[in-house]
Amino acid sequence: MRNPRSHCPVSLALEAIGDRWSLLILRDLIMRGKRHYQDFLNSEEGIATNILADRLGRLERQGLISKSQDPEDKRQFRYSPTQKGLDLLPVIVEMARWSKKYNPHLDPASPLLRRLDADNEDFMKQILSQFKETFSK
Amino acid sequence: MRNPRSHCPVSLALEAIGDRWSLLILRDLIMRGKRHYQDFLNSEEGIATNILADRLGRLERQGLISKSQDPEDKRQFRYSPTQKGLDLLPVIVEMARWSKKYNPHLDPASPLLRRLDADNEDFMKQILSQFKETFSK
Repeated sequence: MRNPRSHCPVSLALEAIGDRWSLLILRDLIMRGKRHYQDFLNSEEGIATNILADRLGRLERQGLISKSQDPEDKRQFRYSPTQKGLDLLPVIVEMARWSKKYNPHLDPASPLLRRLDADNEDFMKQILSQFKETFSK
Repeated sequence: MRNPRSHCPVSLALEAIGDRWSLLILRDLIMRGKRHYQDFLNSEEGIATNILADRLGRLERQGLISKSQDPEDKRQFRYSPTQKGLDLLPVIVEMARWSKKYNPHLDPASPLLRRLDADNEDFMKQILSQFKETFSK
């Protein structure tokens, strides 16, 4: 960003991240091992294809994800989070933790919610090591 | 929300929070001691008055802030974060921490950024105690 509206670090982060769709794409990449356009399109939030294309471009320009030819199928692209994108995991985890507290109808037996009981550091290490496993395949 | 699009806790949090403006209003309330419509309007991000009115209504409906008559000036309202709103502080702090890492032009001597070096727990306790001091005035 050449002309941020504010030098407040909270505001700068919000400008870089963009909107909820961008964070949901990062969630898919980091926590769900999704890598392809079609995978993001199939997420339960039902992102529209034009919004998805726009947000992927935005995330790439912000240096949060990178795009490369898929080595297994050269007709398609494969997306990965960059280190800068991975470093947003604490923001995503704090959102999940907050939701757990304020949405009592969520199934406490779900694997993600159970793991949220662990301390943050452990939980994030688990997600990152799982991520590395998926992406090294 | 009666019909959330998804039961993913990250998605639920994003739906409840809304957009960047809502988080900036919460930042103003929690970290800057702002309480009045005009104070939010004066923040450096330059929120438009119609957007501000809409986001305040939204935050109130989501139970993140509450509105009451200002005891010092009964012609105006005073806004406060609820506990549910205060509990979003870890999300806001993690965004600030991320920005600090990726915006090297930010002034490292700024009080907020210096305090970010402390561990999360300490930092949040400081903000909350400062908040309580301001709001008990």
